[in-house]
Amino acid sequence: MSGTNLLAELIEALRCLPGVGARSAQRMAFHVLERDRNGGARLARALDQAVQRIGHCTRCRNFSESEVCALCANPSRDAQILCVVETPADLLAIEQATGFRGRYFVLMGRLSPLDGLGPDELGRDLLQRRLEEDEVREMVIATNPTVEGEATAHWLAGLARAAGLRATRLAHGVPLGGELEYVDRGTLAHAFGSRQVLE
Amino acid sequence: MSGTNLLAELIEALRCLPGVGARSAQRMAFHVLERDRNGGARLARALDQAVQRIGHCTRCRNFSESEVCALCANPSRDAQILCVVETPADLLAIEQATGFRGRYFVLMGRLSPLDGLGPDELGRDLLQRRLEEDEVREMVIATNPTVEGEATAHWLAGLARAAGLRATRLAHGVPLGGELEYVDRGTLAHAFGSRQVLE
Repeated sequence: MSGTNLLAELIEALRCLPGVGARSAQRMAFHVLERDRNGGARLARALDQAVQRIGHCTRCRNFSESEVCALCANPSRDAQILCVVETPADLLAIEQATGFRGRYFVLMGRLSPLDGLGPDELGRDLLQRRLEEDEVREMVIATNPTVEGEATAHWLAGLARAAGLRATRLAHGVPLGGELEYVDRGTLAHAFGSRQVLE
Repeated sequence: MSGTNLLAELIEALRCLPGVGARSAQRMAFHVLERDRNGGARLARALDQAVQRIGHCTRCRNFSESEVCALCANPSRDAQILCVVETPADLLAIEQATGFRGRYFVLMGRLSPLDGLGPDELGRDLLQRRLEEDEVREMVIATNPTVEGEATAHWLAGLARAAGLRATRLAHGVPLGGELEYVDRGTLAHAFGSRQVLE
């Protein structure tokens, strides 16, 4: 590549981003250099700062720059309902889509013995302490409807039971706006089995 | 976003990359923070260095860290053939696909009056000096087969004529491996009109 090692290094470094292959990395590098050097400089600073300074909230494990994140520090959130999610992205999705005003706990993963992820890696100690100390009444289990998410939900339900809490799960079924013809069999079977009485 | 302004800033900054919308930016930010902080730090450094230190070669205008790029400085490249391209990406494509061993000139754009790109912005002075000083015999015009690329090719051909050089263009026609049925009409009409005698 005409001897510009910095360019080759930039293209290679861009490939750390998910979904960016050799070709998109090249396009991104050229775009930044040709049209948006300010944007590139800003991204360099933002990445550097984020990687160095974003840690985890000591209460909910979500990403946070401060010791306690803004959600945990917000006194207007209802401390009686604790929603447990796998990742910060799931938390964000729930915040944006629902009117949930309780608090969260972010596992930063799911039970996955093959990847070496057990209860300890998911913050069991911290979660148990919250269940004991806080005035939590209900645990909303919002893990993903995958095999590993179901196993994690099962484990969480056990923790809730041990702490004498009500445990609830997100409802499964046919997505709104979906067509039965295209819904996968597992979901359709579940939705059929869990059919509800119209009143 | 739970008060982590650094995270919000990172997600926003990632959107300077082409083809990255709000959702991919979020996915990229979470990926870097959760799984690849080293890659993120490396990308921050590479971006910072590239944006600051990559300029343009004083002979061919391609991106270069040094005053003269490696291609121009390479004495084994044939100085008698000069290939003129629109962008560094085009240069790279030709280097990777063909056995071309001559030299390049990168316009860093195409004639586009609406975008304020005229001959001056495309390095006319530098190009003319190269045509006069160097031992160039042939100019290979490798602009894109678009309306603006054709206008640029026309202008370049004039420069070549004025300097007494042979001007050549990349051949147009049906792409290898393409099916006639799916080739666009313009290309097909051109290929039909330029049909060649089999010998």
